Amino acid sequence: MELLSILALISVFVFSISAALSSIQKKYDMFGISFVTFVTAVGGGTVRDLLLGCHPLFWMENVWFVVSIMAGIGVTFVFKKRILFLKQTFFLFDTLGISLSAILGTQKAIDFGVSPFIAIFFGLVTAVFGGIIRDMMTNQIPLVFRKEIYASACLAGAFIYISLQYIGAPLWLLYGVPTVFIFAIRIISIKYKLSLPRVSL
Amino acid sequence: MELLSILALISVFVFSISAALSSIQKKYDMFGISFVTFVTAVGGGTVRDLLLGCHPLFWMENVWFVVSIMAGIGVTFVFKKRILFLKQTFFLFDTLGISLSAILGTQKAIDFGVSPFIAIFFGLVTAVFGGIIRDMMTNQIPLVFRKEIYASACLAGAFIYISLQYIGAPLWLLYGVPTVFIFAIRIISIKYKLSLPRVSL
Amino acid sequence: MELLSILALISVFVFSISAALSSIQKKYDMFGISFVTFVTAVGGGTVRDLLLGCHPLFWMENVWFVVSIMAGIGVTFVFKKRILFLKQTFFLFDTLGISLSAILGTQKAIDFGVSPFIAIFFGLVTAVFGGIIRDMMTNQIPLVFRKEIYASACLAGAFIYISLQYIGAPLWLLYGVPTVFIFAIRIISIKYKLSLPRVSL
Repeated sequence: MELLSILALISVFVFSISAALSSIQKKYDMFGISFVTFVTAVGGGTVRDLLLGCHPLFWMENVWFVVSIMAGIGVTFVFKKRILFLKQTFFLFDTLGISLSAILGTQKAIDFGVSPFIAIFFGLVTAVFGGIIRDMMTNQIPLVFRKEIYASACLAGAFIYISLQYIGAPLWLLYGVPTVFIFAIRIISIKYKLSLPRVSL
Repeated sequence: MELLSILALISVFVFSISAALSSIQKKYDMFGISFVTFVTAVGGGTVRDLLLGCHPLFWMENVWFVVSIMAGIGVTFVFKKRILFLKQTFFLFDTLGISLSAILGTQKAIDFGVSPFIAIFFGLVTAVFGGIIRDMMTNQIPLVFRKEIYASACLAGAFIYISLQYIGAPLWLLYGVPTVFIFAIRIISIKYKLSLPRVSL
Repeated sequence: MELLSILALISVFVFSISAALSSIQKKYDMFGISFVTFVTAVGGGTVRDLLLGCHPLFWMENVWFVVSIMAGIGVTFVFKKRILFLKQTFFLFDTLGISLSAILGTQKAIDFGVSPFIAIFFGLVTAVFGGIIRDMMTNQIPLVFRKEIYASACLAGAFIYISLQYIGAPLWLLYGVPTVFIFAIRIISIKYKLSLPRVSL
């Protein structure tokens, strides 16, 4: 439980850096940046909690989530030129956020008695819905529908997590294997410009 | 109760065909198509359940809803050329989905103690919100605000349903009359290009 | 309690006039206008109630909210030319809606045991989320991210409200000071074209 909370905090912190950077590029004012960052960072988990009927929401119970987001915005502002320079380092952090979210979301759905088949979907929602809401608010077609195959990687990662849990794998494998898998897929797909087949009529 | 579940499954299946077809035309990848289809098919009922505070959500309780959507996507892929050819047959299915949703949504709100006046609004939300979310995610002004008068037909259908229930009409009339009414309005409005008056300043 | 309900009704009524006017300008049909108006007027409070897990939602408990919105739409239609002429009067009403929503939203979150620090965020959500949903549905980048500083004023107003409540200020000061403050900020910021600093890379 303690470990899950720490992983959740890390994932929110990392997402807030990613969101703050992308909204700075839109030339919003400081309120706009903070608001979009907050919604992106907690959006996926909030949609998951609302769908599960889990109250209070995860970021209302524990004030450290709000503090993490503020810290993420602060770090982005201070280091903003350096972070863009370190684009690849940043990509790793973003993927870490997605991997952790997929695992944590799947686990929370299982804790709420959702069947494993549907719990995988909750892992996906937790990982990608923050970005979908961000893109909807900023009037863009969500990236997740158009590029990369990381959404599919999240589904596969969540499936691996469920399978490992079923066979009683030790903790480091349970979290490690899906995370490494999602990282690998994302890096390979970008390197070789892989994407899922498009369907044409 | 059993009957209502079967009607709900039919409505989700029919909506998923409609959604899959429309997202194929956007050239999303396979994940994008599946995700948009899922959200469109269960979106209206999910918003209704969230607003009512009804948990677990209807598609989490019964795994057949997810199976229906997958079947809908599969059918669309296999028959996609034929379905476009059968555009009119398809239109009938889509209207069936909307009619059933309007009735089922109204009934569920009443079951939750909502006053009949407001329950009609829930019928509308169930019928049209899946499409609204789809259009918001794909960055379009929702069709329902611009074209046809089927939203108004849903409201009227839900009102007829409530009235028939109030006077204790037999089951086949209770479901039949609003469905036929919504069909009739939609067909007539398309045939004669009717729409509600636009308000200009 | 009685006083809070009356203030909430006034805020919904005022918001519905603002929303109806803005959707008339989009040339929606009558259904579109009514739907957008309804969603804008109750959207902020609905998101707040969903996040808090508060059921039934405020507008489902009390039929007067729906009546207020219908009255707001009716008033807008009848007086639409005159209201545009009275743009400044109207601006005052809209600001009144935002001020009341910020205070009422903050109070409701506190009533649900949310910590004051996070309750301020609920005041903001109640005040601005109706407009954000409206802009998302009508395919625009939400105004609140781009213009004026009223969102920041809402946060500050909610903070003042919490502080006054903490020191046990009398009722007229408790509601009056934040409202006057939000009005003052909004009028000054428009008059002198103030806005928050934009962050550039």
